[in-house]
Amino acid sequence: MMKYNQYAYLSCSLQTQIKELKAIHFLPEAWSEISFSQLLARFVGEICAEAKTDEAKKAKLATFAVSDHENLTDFLRNKPETLTVQEFANVAWQLLGYHPYGDYTLSHPEDLSKHQQLPLPEKPINSREALISAFYRLLNTRAKNGQLLLDTMAANGYFNPFFGQNKFLFFNGKSLPVFDTQKIIREVVYVESDLDTDEDGQNDLLQVSIMRPQESDHGLKVPALYTADPYFGGIIDNVKRNHDVDENLTDAVQDDHPDQKVFPHHPAAKPSQEDHPATESAVESSPYSLNEYLLARGFANVYAGGIGTRGSDGIRICGAPEETICAREIIEWLHGDRVAYTDRSRKTQTKASWCNQSIGMTGRSYLGTLQIAVATTGVAGLKTVVSEAAISSWYDYYREHGLVIAPEACQGEDTDLLSETCQSNLWDGGDYLKRKPAYEQNQKELLKNEDRVTGQYSSFWETRNYRHHTDGIKCSFISVHGLNDWNVKPKNVYKLWQKLDTLPIPHKLFLHQGPHYNMNNLVSIDFTDLMNLWFCHELLQLDNHAPEQWPTVMIQDNLKADCWHAEKTWNTALGQKRNYQLNSAGELTSTDPGEGQKEFLDFGGKKFKSAAISEAEWQNEFLKGKANWLDSQLRFISEPFSHPITIVGRPKIKLRVKASLPKGQLSVALIELGKRRRLTPIPRTLMARSQKLGYRFGYEDLKEFVPDKMNEFKLITKGHMNLQNYADMKKARTINADEFYELSFFLQPTYYQIPAETKLGLILYSTDQGMTKRPLEEEKYTFDLSDCQLTFYQK
Amino acid sequence: MMKYNQYAYLSCSLQTQIKELKAIHFLPEAWSEISFSQLLARFVGEICAEAKTDEAKKAKLATFAVSDHENLTDFLRNKPETLTVQEFANVAWQLLGYHPYGDYTLSHPEDLSKHQQLPLPEKPINSREALISAFYRLLNTRAKNGQLLLDTMAANGYFNPFFGQNKFLFFNGKSLPVFDTQKIIREVVYVESDLDTDEDGQNDLLQVSIMRPQESDHGLKVPALYTADPYFGGIIDNVKRNHDVDENLTDAVQDDHPDQKVFPHHPAAKPSQEDHPATESAVESSPYSLNEYLLARGFANVYAGGIGTRGSDGIRICGAPEETICAREIIEWLHGDRVAYTDRSRKTQTKASWCNQSIGMTGRSYLGTLQIAVATTGVAGLKTVVSEAAISSWYDYYREHGLVIAPEACQGEDTDLLSETCQSNLWDGGDYLKRKPAYEQNQKELLKNEDRVTGQYSSFWETRNYRHHTDGIKCSFISVHGLNDWNVKPKNVYKLWQKLDTLPIPHKLFLHQGPHYNMNNLVSIDFTDLMNLWFCHELLQLDNHAPEQWPTVMIQDNLKADCWHAEKTWNTALGQKRNYQLNSAGELTSTDPGEGQKEFLDFGGKKFKSAAISEAEWQNEFLKGKANWLDSQLRFISEPFSHPITIVGRPKIKLRVKASLPKGQLSVALIELGKRRRLTPIPRTLMARSQKLGYRFGYEDLKEFVPDKMNEFKLITKGHMNLQNYADMKKARTINADEFYELSFFLQPTYYQIPAETKLGLILYSTDQGMTKRPLEEEKYTFDLSDCQLTFYQK
Repeated sequence: MMKYNQYAYLSCSLQTQIKELKAIHFLPEAWSEISFSQLLARFVGEICAEAKTDEAKKAKLATFAVSDHENLTDFLRNKPETLTVQEFANVAWQLLGYHPYGDYTLSHPEDLSKHQQLPLPEKPINSREALISAFYRLLNTRAKNGQLLLDTMAANGYFNPFFGQNKFLFFNGKSLPVFDTQKIIREVVYVESDLDTDEDGQNDLLQVSIMRPQESDHGLKVPALYTADPYFGGIIDNVKRNHDVDENLTDAVQDDHPDQKVFPHHPAAKPSQEDHPATESAVESSPYSLNEYLLARGFANVYAGGIGTRGSDGIRICGAPEETICAREIIEWLHGDRVAYTDRSRKTQTKASWCNQSIGMTGRSYLGTLQIAVATTGVAGLKTVVSEAAISSWYDYYREHGLVIAPEACQGEDTDLLSETCQSNLWDGGDYLKRKPAYEQNQKELLKNEDRVTGQYSSFWETRNYRHHTDGIKCSFISVHGLNDWNVKPKNVYKLWQKLDTLPIPHKLFLHQGPHYNMNNLVSIDFTDLMNLWFCHELLQLDNHAPEQWPTVMIQDNLKADCWHAEKTWNTALGQKRNYQLNSAGELTSTDPGEGQKEFLDFGGKKFKSAAISEAEWQNEFLKGKANWLDSQLRFISEPFSHPITIVGRPKIKLRVKASLPKGQLSVALIELGKRRRLTPIPRTLMARSQKLGYRFGYEDLKEFVPDKMNEFKLITKGHMNLQNYADMKKARTINADEFYELSFFLQPTYYQIPAETKLGLILYSTDQGMTKRPLEEEKYTFDLSDCQLTFYQK
Repeated sequence: MMKYNQYAYLSCSLQTQIKELKAIHFLPEAWSEISFSQLLARFVGEICAEAKTDEAKKAKLATFAVSDHENLTDFLRNKPETLTVQEFANVAWQLLGYHPYGDYTLSHPEDLSKHQQLPLPEKPINSREALISAFYRLLNTRAKNGQLLLDTMAANGYFNPFFGQNKFLFFNGKSLPVFDTQKIIREVVYVESDLDTDEDGQNDLLQVSIMRPQESDHGLKVPALYTADPYFGGIIDNVKRNHDVDENLTDAVQDDHPDQKVFPHHPAAKPSQEDHPATESAVESSPYSLNEYLLARGFANVYAGGIGTRGSDGIRICGAPEETICAREIIEWLHGDRVAYTDRSRKTQTKASWCNQSIGMTGRSYLGTLQIAVATTGVAGLKTVVSEAAISSWYDYYREHGLVIAPEACQGEDTDLLSETCQSNLWDGGDYLKRKPAYEQNQKELLKNEDRVTGQYSSFWETRNYRHHTDGIKCSFISVHGLNDWNVKPKNVYKLWQKLDTLPIPHKLFLHQGPHYNMNNLVSIDFTDLMNLWFCHELLQLDNHAPEQWPTVMIQDNLKADCWHAEKTWNTALGQKRNYQLNSAGELTSTDPGEGQKEFLDFGGKKFKSAAISEAEWQNEFLKGKANWLDSQLRFISEPFSHPITIVGRPKIKLRVKASLPKGQLSVALIELGKRRRLTPIPRTLMARSQKLGYRFGYEDLKEFVPDKMNEFKLITKGHMNLQNYADMKKARTINADEFYELSFFLQPTYYQIPAETKLGLILYSTDQGMTKRPLEEEKYTFDLSDCQLTFYQK
């Protein structure tokens, strides 16, 4: 049992309810002329949208139980004028997809309301008005599959009679699926870029795939949800040749300040008055179900891979300003400011004349990253972005505090390899022949300039830090991130948020308990509905008060998945500062001073390789403290907490350390210890493909984090640092072996509730097998505990 | 690299090729008036179906490479009149979805042809006729995603201009997707049964969901693919209350010969002339992609859950004759011989007037089982069945040789619980109130009559053995089964096949290397295309020689997944008899006599439970011979085989055994031993959702068994027997403790190639944790090896 929280329901007057119910033909115009029981039969029949005639709807009534001894047909025979809360609940739950055999009992239907947060009327329904209100609320209640009841009716064809009316229809502040999903237009155009990244003397063409309601060919202008998706053209599988990380550290002072090449740039001709229809059809369906859901509700979906991707010219230059430019240029075309052609012969121009010039962006990971990039350009037409699990600085993706640090499950990956992964225009033979030389040259330059040797900051990375340009952001901004995302680490969203929080634009933040995941199919939050509200407000100027409808920051609890915390912001100011010292007894103590010295011997990658386990298995064994890994780590464990606390923001570690070589890498992990059933690391699929995004259209699962098997600990956060950056994170110094240095750095940000009776553990180590380089040599690290400290903010 | 075998390609004359190519508008009528190079450009442009205009198609040509230095646009500029095999291959592979960057090299494209079994012309193409033939073959070649190139074009809209022509179009003997998948009619009707299984005095209504081309509303009669699917209405999750198997054996002589109740039966009224359109829409999409593929090609899909399932009356009586009857009655309606109504009020009759009265059946497991059941009735209209992983006798599903034996991963399941699983009409409140008493009564009777106490054969099981009625089969019959299916064990298909092989009907058999799986998405065989051929022949009377097109029995090799063996039949007659003896040194020997005595002590479920591992983990450890399980088994290992052999059919074991209690259960496993990379137990997904079943329609993956991690053994076959049945498999005898008895029984059938240098292992044990009961008491089993023997047939 789990709460189906609803944040996107707007309270409204009976008058509004009646108006909206009439508009969708649920309530007859002459409703005041028919009886209570007729109205009840009508409502239930309408919800059974699969029954197409009055006769068929009437036959359906007998399948509903009103109580533990009577079905709805028999109940209506006595022409009742009132409905108890229990009677309403029994029918309502069945309409929402629950079963009396298994999900609830007909004698106590109200229990389900409590367990699953399903709204019920407070008192018996004894008037037609009360019945109307109860059903208005029910249509706007999330069914067992997680969707609004109205959406499940849409999947059964309820809104088919509205297809082709060429207008939006809103209900409770959200756009309804009144667009014919069988007739979606799917077409491809080619936008001309100002760039010439393959340096063939011709401006790069950028392939754009558009999916839009056919109604937008009949006078209705629709907004565009644009996803800049470098994977859209396909993924080149290069994982086998990731860079070798089994190598010793290098003296980081040898950093030669690499730069980023700038590519040719010639403004394309402005578009003429010419506007021909597209001549190439897009065959892909939307890879992101949130987009498809909104497509059925009138929002065009626009995908473009950008330079280097299949169907487009140019080469991929991961993170470079050219990627920002080409992603922005699609919006320029959508807004009417840039030329596009029907095919690659550049002969026939085509316009986005179907677009209302209001553009939003969506997407996760690289796709979320490009939203930040484009938003900072302040491009005209871009009204809002919903950026999920996004990189805000590429240094924070592939590097950390002077070290080469891999995203989780991507050991040895870097900008050159991610560029190759997305260089899908090499797939087509003709394009392959043409672009191979420029591609190979660029690969060499990326490899050199990204500098996997030292890991130091440089202008190469400086140009890949979008946070320097947040002042340019003119659109509203929603960020979504998993607090356990070790691919795009939470620092990316945290540092961006601190900037956004100072800007005069509407901005929101969602933090869920997942890793590198979307959150649009969870039981515990109606994210999809919220996005419907949001995009109606931002792109259709609907006055639904979306920005005030839910709290600025929503954070999923790490103990109870169906509890979401509302906060005004996300930073250490939410809490009180706490210091912890380390002592030679292996204690993490807030009361005593630190004392003594302790050391560990790092084996680099040697023992890990001979163990022949995966990086994830290693991390689990290592953090748990399995005996064979104990000599290459130091563990400091707190007393059990007497009452729960929540760690907020970025914990900071201060260390005084010496190493046996004149170089070194430090890793620090903060874990929570205690035998408990914690939430699953990824949401479990509760009902596969249960959500229908429209009439005979796409599908989405229903998922949630649920209590997992008993385990002993959980990683809260971690961080890594190059010893040679002890004095300056951006500049390495020469250090001496066996000499103490003081340093401090921040761990990744969190919002982590530590329940009472569990302990906090701090682990100091060096080689992090899944993230750092894995040296071939051994190195001893010694800590002066009198000068080590962990600091965090708790609420 | 893996072979894309093609069995469904029909060789045909140039004249036929030209005729068919013209019919699909691929070849212009006036082709002899245009040049070789124009024809080549035209063909490539047509295959690029996503490009909708000549201009757009022309622009596409530059994306193809003809050689490692020239693209197709440049190549055509010189108006060539010939094409080398390499040039053709380079363009062809790209059209099939392969990439020169990754999949093959432009300088040696012919290598791909060898590795993947892709057809290529034998000599340079130097005439228009040769070019036409080459492209005819190419359109009929399986693309990288496993589908025919023509099917990938269909997904891009190639056949959209043919929609609404209201006729079938055939190409190379198969039906083309010329039916508008955006306009499929999905409707529900209610067939009236002769049965009254809920004993409410009214004949049960059976809900039928129909998906059919809208063209069938415009004068075109189409065949029906009917799937009798007890899971269609939903699955009641009762796994938590499976029967307890942790109990001692009971004296099997106490078997009280349980019987099967017979339910009321009143012939329904014959249909009148009335025929009204359906008034309820079906919302489900086809759960089986083969059906959806064929729906896009004009074959209606019909699903019915039968008695007890959601939307239908009655109760579920797993395996009973009533299930056969209600499944058959849907065909009677499709054939025009039975009445159906538009809704459950039984007022308005509706006919399957869209149906050509030719019906085929499809489906796997329970759904395949009901095909056998219905086929034995010889019902009019049923022309063919494709029965996958089907139960041919329910005793062989839940019992074996006098023991209660679970299907894999279903410990404690039985007919009563499977009935409950499918009793989805309890979900609707009104139906729940009405049917609960009859349902509960039936549950009690099933539990009693299935007799989980003794496991003996009885009339309850006798009525559930469809093999007694195979003489009634009038339709053609295709069986499909996994040789590693430990859910529906291969004995089911083997014993059925021996019957089918004597009948005067076309019959075919496919045996793949999977467990309880479909095989319609494998790389190594074009099963989907074969089924297209087959159903066109059987249901549309197309003269495509389908029955002669591929061998009677096709068996996937257990070493190389892309090798399929052709056999005339499947039984021991394919091989030579071999006997193996057992000796006290633990040897399995074909040369020496058996000798000595050996014993093991069975611990029932005790040690398994304390190990806290899964049944699958237990089986892996136990058969591998992990030390802690060795005292409850006897192992006999052969010398390594000097040359490969294939074990065919059912090995037989003869044993002389005494037990320390006057009851006992014996298990025997045959394994193959040797450190090797064997095939994955389930096919790996190679390209997820890569096969498009029609234009904007369903999807299917591409899968295949691939070499897995190194492991040490593989289970070939096993079997179980109740000691008390030593004299008669259908009648238990009293036995004495510590007295020797002779017995013999057959293991499950196989077709297993043992490669040279590996050994055969025979394991004798008692409790099989995942299948037998798990006694609470210990029991010692002693074998007189001088009278034990393993016999099998090898080729």
